[in-house]
Amino acid sequence: MQTDATTVDLSGMPIEQLSIQTIRTLAIDAVQAANSGHPGAPMALAPVAYLLCRQMRYNPHSPDWFDRDRFVLSAGHASMLLYAMLHLTGYDLPLEELKQFRQLGSMTPGHPEAGDTPGVETTTGPLGQGLMNAVGMAMAEAHLAAVFNRPNHRVIDHSTYVVCSDGDLMEGASHEAASLAGHLGLGKLIVIYDDNRITIEGSTDLAWSDDVPARFESYGWHVQNLGDAANDLAALAAALETARAAQDRPSLIMVRSHIGFGSPNKQDTAAAHGSPLGAEEVFLTKKAYGWPADRTFHVPESVREHMGEAVARGMAEELAWRERMEAYRETYPELAERLEISIEGIPPEGWAAKLPRFDPSGDPLATRAASGMALQVAAEQIPWLLGGSADLSPSNNTEIPFSGDFARGSWENRNVHWGVREHLMCSAANGMARHGGVRPYVATFLIFTDYARPAIRLAALMAQPVIYVMTHDSIGLGEDGPTHQPVEHLAALRSIPDLVVIRPADANETVEAWQVAIERTNGPTLLALTRQKVPTLIRPADAGGVARGGYIVADSEGSEPDIILMATGSEVSIALAARRQLAEGGTEARVVSLPSWELFRAQDRAYRDSVLAPSVRARIAIEAGVEMGWHEWIGEDGSFIGMTGFGASAPAAQLFEHFGITAEAIVSEAQRLLAT
Amino acid sequence: MQTDATTVDLSGMPIEQLSIQTIRTLAIDAVQAANSGHPGAPMALAPVAYLLCRQMRYNPHSPDWFDRDRFVLSAGHASMLLYAMLHLTGYDLPLEELKQFRQLGSMTPGHPEAGDTPGVETTTGPLGQGLMNAVGMAMAEAHLAAVFNRPNHRVIDHSTYVVCSDGDLMEGASHEAASLAGHLGLGKLIVIYDDNRITIEGSTDLAWSDDVPARFESYGWHVQNLGDAANDLAALAAALETARAAQDRPSLIMVRSHIGFGSPNKQDTAAAHGSPLGAEEVFLTKKAYGWPADRTFHVPESVREHMGEAVARGMAEELAWRERMEAYRETYPELAERLEISIEGIPPEGWAAKLPRFDPSGDPLATRAASGMALQVAAEQIPWLLGGSADLSPSNNTEIPFSGDFARGSWENRNVHWGVREHLMCSAANGMARHGGVRPYVATFLIFTDYARPAIRLAALMAQPVIYVMTHDSIGLGEDGPTHQPVEHLAALRSIPDLVVIRPADANETVEAWQVAIERTNGPTLLALTRQKVPTLIRPADAGGVARGGYIVADSEGSEPDIILMATGSEVSIALAARRQLAEGGTEARVVSLPSWELFRAQDRAYRDSVLAPSVRARIAIEAGVEMGWHEWIGEDGSFIGMTGFGASAPAAQLFEHFGITAEAIVSEAQRLLAT
Repeated sequence: MQTDATTVDLSGMPIEQLSIQTIRTLAIDAVQAANSGHPGAPMALAPVAYLLCRQMRYNPHSPDWFDRDRFVLSAGHASMLLYAMLHLTGYDLPLEELKQFRQLGSMTPGHPEAGDTPGVETTTGPLGQGLMNAVGMAMAEAHLAAVFNRPNHRVIDHSTYVVCSDGDLMEGASHEAASLAGHLGLGKLIVIYDDNRITIEGSTDLAWSDDVPARFESYGWHVQNLGDAANDLAALAAALETARAAQDRPSLIMVRSHIGFGSPNKQDTAAAHGSPLGAEEVFLTKKAYGWPADRTFHVPESVREHMGEAVARGMAEELAWRERMEAYRETYPELAERLEISIEGIPPEGWAAKLPRFDPSGDPLATRAASGMALQVAAEQIPWLLGGSADLSPSNNTEIPFSGDFARGSWENRNVHWGVREHLMCSAANGMARHGGVRPYVATFLIFTDYARPAIRLAALMAQPVIYVMTHDSIGLGEDGPTHQPVEHLAALRSIPDLVVIRPADANETVEAWQVAIERTNGPTLLALTRQKVPTLIRPADAGGVARGGYIVADSEGSEPDIILMATGSEVSIALAARRQLAEGGTEARVVSLPSWELFRAQDRAYRDSVLAPSVRARIAIEAGVEMGWHEWIGEDGSFIGMTGFGASAPAAQLFEHFGITAEAIVSEAQRLLAT
Repeated sequence: MQTDATTVDLSGMPIEQLSIQTIRTLAIDAVQAANSGHPGAPMALAPVAYLLCRQMRYNPHSPDWFDRDRFVLSAGHASMLLYAMLHLTGYDLPLEELKQFRQLGSMTPGHPEAGDTPGVETTTGPLGQGLMNAVGMAMAEAHLAAVFNRPNHRVIDHSTYVVCSDGDLMEGASHEAASLAGHLGLGKLIVIYDDNRITIEGSTDLAWSDDVPARFESYGWHVQNLGDAANDLAALAAALETARAAQDRPSLIMVRSHIGFGSPNKQDTAAAHGSPLGAEEVFLTKKAYGWPADRTFHVPESVREHMGEAVARGMAEELAWRERMEAYRETYPELAERLEISIEGIPPEGWAAKLPRFDPSGDPLATRAASGMALQVAAEQIPWLLGGSADLSPSNNTEIPFSGDFARGSWENRNVHWGVREHLMCSAANGMARHGGVRPYVATFLIFTDYARPAIRLAALMAQPVIYVMTHDSIGLGEDGPTHQPVEHLAALRSIPDLVVIRPADANETVEAWQVAIERTNGPTLLALTRQKVPTLIRPADAGGVARGGYIVADSEGSEPDIILMATGSEVSIALAARRQLAEGGTEARVVSLPSWELFRAQDRAYRDSVLAPSVRARIAIEAGVEMGWHEWIGEDGSFIGMTGFGASAPAAQLFEHFGITAEAIVSEAQRLLAT
C-alpha cells in the first residue's frame, strides 16, 4: 500500500469543510478498525450532520435536558455518523469509544442503542422504527406544549429531526408514520430523506419508483426536493430554515446524496453500504478528501474547538430555558409542579387505592370491560397517561371518558385515534416513552400484536414502560374466526425478553394487572383480555395475586392436593368448575391462576414451590392457546389442555366445546393422569 | 315489531336492482341470523359486487379453472358480500350455508377462508393482506404470461380484482403493495377502493386525511376517482372498462360509498360496520329497498336466473380457453406440458439427486452459503420456483444465478427484488402460492420475520407451501448487535401451528432442509441459517437426518450415554466439542441434532425414544436463543444453555463467550447435572 501525505496541510480548508471531513474520516476509520459496519451513509451525510450539530438545540453536558431538540437517526446503520456528531460536539463519548466501534461493552454498538450512549435518543436499525418513534416524540411534544405552555411562557418548544433512508421509506412503517403525522399536522417534525439511490441489492431502480415528494404531499406534508445538494451547506441550511417556518405541517427535505462520497472506486455503489472500504480505498478516499492519509481517527484541534462550541451554546440554551421555567413557576406554580411530576413519571403515592374492586356475587364481566374501568381510574390519577387504540377503541374499552380527541390543534387531549396503524401505534408509543413527560398506552386485538411485533420488541430492548391493552385474547372472541383468534400469540409474546405478559382471569385480576403495568416504569407490560364475560372469582383472603404472577385460587381441603390445575385468563373459571366436579368424585384439586409467567418466575423458590408444590406430579395446564412453553410448569408427567392448531368461526361457547377446553375434558384428563 | 309487506310486488324492479337488493338482503339476513357480523359494507358495495359478477371471467362449476380472473375481498369482514356473490352465480354454496353464516363447520366463516368455500381465492380479514396477496397473484400471472404466451397464443390472460377498504389503505401493508405493484407496472391488477369514510371509532376524519388518488398516482398507478357513484352502475362499468384498458399500470378505482346503504337509521354510521342491524332496522331497511320486509334470505327466481347466467358464461369461457390450450399444445407441446407441470406443482421425480453433498473434511461453510448452492439446484430442477429477498439477496444467498431480474416487461425472470418490504414479500408469496403455477421463496434476516408475521401466519393457516430463507439466525451475526440478533424468534416461529421451522447444523443438513421444504407442498417451511461458518459434521452412516426432525450425530461408545446434549444449528458443533471434552473425563455423551421440532414430533414414539432415550435424565439443550419451549425436550431435570435476554454488538466469537454458549460451559453444566 502507498504511504505518503503525512505532510498534508489542512490549514487552508474552511472550518466547515474540515469538520465535515473529520466526521467522514472518523466513520471510515471506525468501520475499518472494527472491520465491520456501514461507512457509505456517514460519508454522504456528513454535511447534513454538521449542519444539524450547528443548528439543533441541545446541551452535550446535559443530554437529558428536557426541552432539547430530538435527533433520530432512522437509518441506524449509519451509526458512526451519530457517534461522530456526539463525540465532536462534546458529549461524554471519548475518541477511545469510537475506536471501540462495534466491540463488546463499548458505548458505540453497531446500531444506536438508547441507554448505551449519551445523546442517543432511541434505538434504531430495524428500518422504519426511527421515523415512527419520531412521530411519537413529536406527538409528545405537541401534547406537552398544548397542556403546559401559556401566553408568553413557552416552556415546551422543541423540534424532532430525523434522518431517514430509502429503506425507511420502502417499509410500510413509513406510510403509517407519514399519514398520521400529516393528519395531525405535526409541524415540528422535520425529516431529512437521504436519497442515495442505492440499496443492498443495487440501484433503488431495481425495486422502487415512488415519486416521494408527491407521496408526502398526499399526506399533507411540506416537501422540499433539494436535488443533488448533499454537499451544499447553504441550500441545506435554507431548507432547514424553511422547514422550521412551516409550522402547520411536518416537513420532508429530500436530498440526493452519494453513498460513500469521495471514495474513488466505491462512491455510488452498494459496496459502500455495509462493508469497510478496505485499507487501499481508505487511503485513496482520504487523499481525495485532502486528508492526511496515514492518520486514523484524526480530529484537527480547530474542529474540536469549532464543533465543541455546542457545549457553550447548549449551556446558554438550557440556562435560558431554566430562566423561562422559573418565570413560569412564579406565574403558574401548579402547572410547573405538574410538568415536573410528568417528566419524573412516577405514579402518585396511593394512586391505586381508587381502583375498583369487584365482588364475586356480581354479574360476570369481560376482562376488557374491567380494564376500561381500571384505565379510567389510572387516567384520573395520572394526568400524563395518554393513548388509544388502532381504531378499535369501542372494542378495547380504551377511551378516557373525561378527555377529548388528540387532534390537530387540540393536542392537549388524551384520546389518541391511531387509525388502523398498529405498527406505528406501538412504535410511536416507544418514541413517546423515550421523549418523556407522557406515559403511553396502546390497544388493539391480541392477534394484531403480530402487526406491531418489531416495535413491541424494541420497547422491551429499550426498557420503555409502554402498556399494551390487547383484547379478544382467544377463541373466546367467537365468530370472527381463525384470522382473528390468537392461538400462538401468548407464547410468542412470552418469548420476548423483558416483556411482562399478563392474562388476568377476572375483573379483580385485571385491576391488579393495571396496577402492575402502571407501576412497572422500567419495561413494557402487555395485558391479554377477554372479549367474553367471565365470573369474578372467589379468592382466599391470603392469596397472592397478579403481582406474584401466580397464586392458589382454590386449594384442596386439608392435606396436599391430588392434582394441580393451572390456568390463565378465561380458563381459570373452567378449571374451578373441573375442581368442583373432581371433588364430587373424591379427588382433591388445587387451582392455580398463573396470569404472568414473568412475574411468577421473579418470585423466590419458596413461594413458587408453595404454589406449584414439587411433590404433586399430576398437573394439568389449561389455556386456550398452544402448548408452547407450558412444559416449564407442568413437568414431564403433566398434561396440557388447549389449542393444537388454529381456531374456527362459531359462537364462543361452541368453540370451547369443539376444541375440548371444558371442565369435563379436564376431569377426564385428571382421572387418566391419576390412574397411571 | 311491525309486519306487512308480504304483498310487495318486485316485478317492476329492474333486474340489476333486483339482483343488488338480493345481495344486500342476503347479507343483512345472514348477519342477523348469526347475530354477529358486518352488514354495512355488503350493503354499500352490492352494486360493485353485482358488476364484478357480470364482468369477471370465472366458471362457478369449475372454481379452479386456471385462467379465471381472481377476486380478492381485502375487506374480509364484508364476507357476506362474497358469499352472496358465490351463491347467486352458482358456486357450490347452497342457500342453507348462508343461513349458517359464522356457525361451526359451515362453508361461511366470519371472514373468507381459502379452502372452506369454493370460489374464495384467499383468506382475508387481517387488513392489508388481501391487497398484498393480490399483488402476488398479479405477479404470478405476469410471470406465467411472459413465460408461456406466444404470438397468437394467449393461454395465460386474466386479471386480479380487489375490493379494499380505508382500513386496508391505512395499514403500512398498502404502501408496500402499491409501491411494488406500481414499480412493476402490474396492469392487470384492478383495485376498487370503498371510500365509505367510516371506521370503527367513527369518521375516518378522526385519524386520516390522505389524498388517496394523489398517493396512488405517486406510485405510478392509474387512478379514477368516481366520487359518490357506488350506486351508479354505468359509471362503475365505465371505470372498470377504463381500468382494464390501462394495461401498463395497476388501477385504483375510488368510489365514495355509504356504509349500511339504505338503512334509515344506521347508514353512514359506525354502527352499521360490525353489528347486526337489529330486527327493527332490518325491517325498515327492507322497506326502504322496496323489499318484502317479512321475508328472509329471499332470492327472487328472476335473480337466480339472471345471476346464474354466470354458469353458462363461465362454461363457454373455460371451453374457449381449453380450445386455445389445445391449439397451443399442438404448436408448443413442450411449453404446454411445462405449464401443466407448473400448475400441478409437484417437484419432478428424483430432482433431489442433484443436490450437493459436503464432505466433513472440507472448509467450514455458513449454512446460508450452503443454502444458496441448494437453491441453485432446486431452481434448475423446478423451473416454476421463483423468489428473492427483501433487499438482502447478497447476504441471504438467494439469487438464481442463471435467471434475470423479474421486472416490468421482463416478468419471465425469476429473481424478484422485493425491496425493503418484508411484509409485502411474505404476503405476496401467499398470493403467488394461492394463484398457482409458481412456487415462491422469500428471504430476509431471521429477525425481520417480525415484520412479516401476519403473512407467515396466514401461509400456515392457508397451508401454502411458501419457503422462507431466513439468515443471520443468532448472535452469530455479530457486530450488528441486538436490534439484528434474533433471540426469541425461533420460539416465536415454532409457536405458529403448521409452520415447519428448520435450523440446520451444517451444509448437509441445509441441503436436506431444502429438500424437505421443496417437497412439503401442503404448508410453509422456514429455514433459519447462519451468517457465520460452521464445520461440516461427521455423521454416522445410519443416522436419521433433517427429514426426521432430530437424530443422533454422535453417540456414547457402547452402552447408554451418561448425558444427552441436544442442539440446533451452529450450536451442534459446540455440543460436539463438549462431548469430546467430556469423553476425556470419562463421561459418555450423546449429541442430538434437533433441527426441526415439528418434524421430530411427527415421528413415532419409538424413534423419538431411540433418539432422546427416556431413561437418560441428564440432558442439556444448547441453542443461541431463549429457553422457551425447550422444557418439552430436556424434561424437568435438564438444563438449557442459551440466551436469557437480548444480545450485544461485538464480534460473534466473543459473543458466544460472553453469553456462555461454549463447550466449556456445557461441560461444566454436565458435570453439575451428573453430580446431583
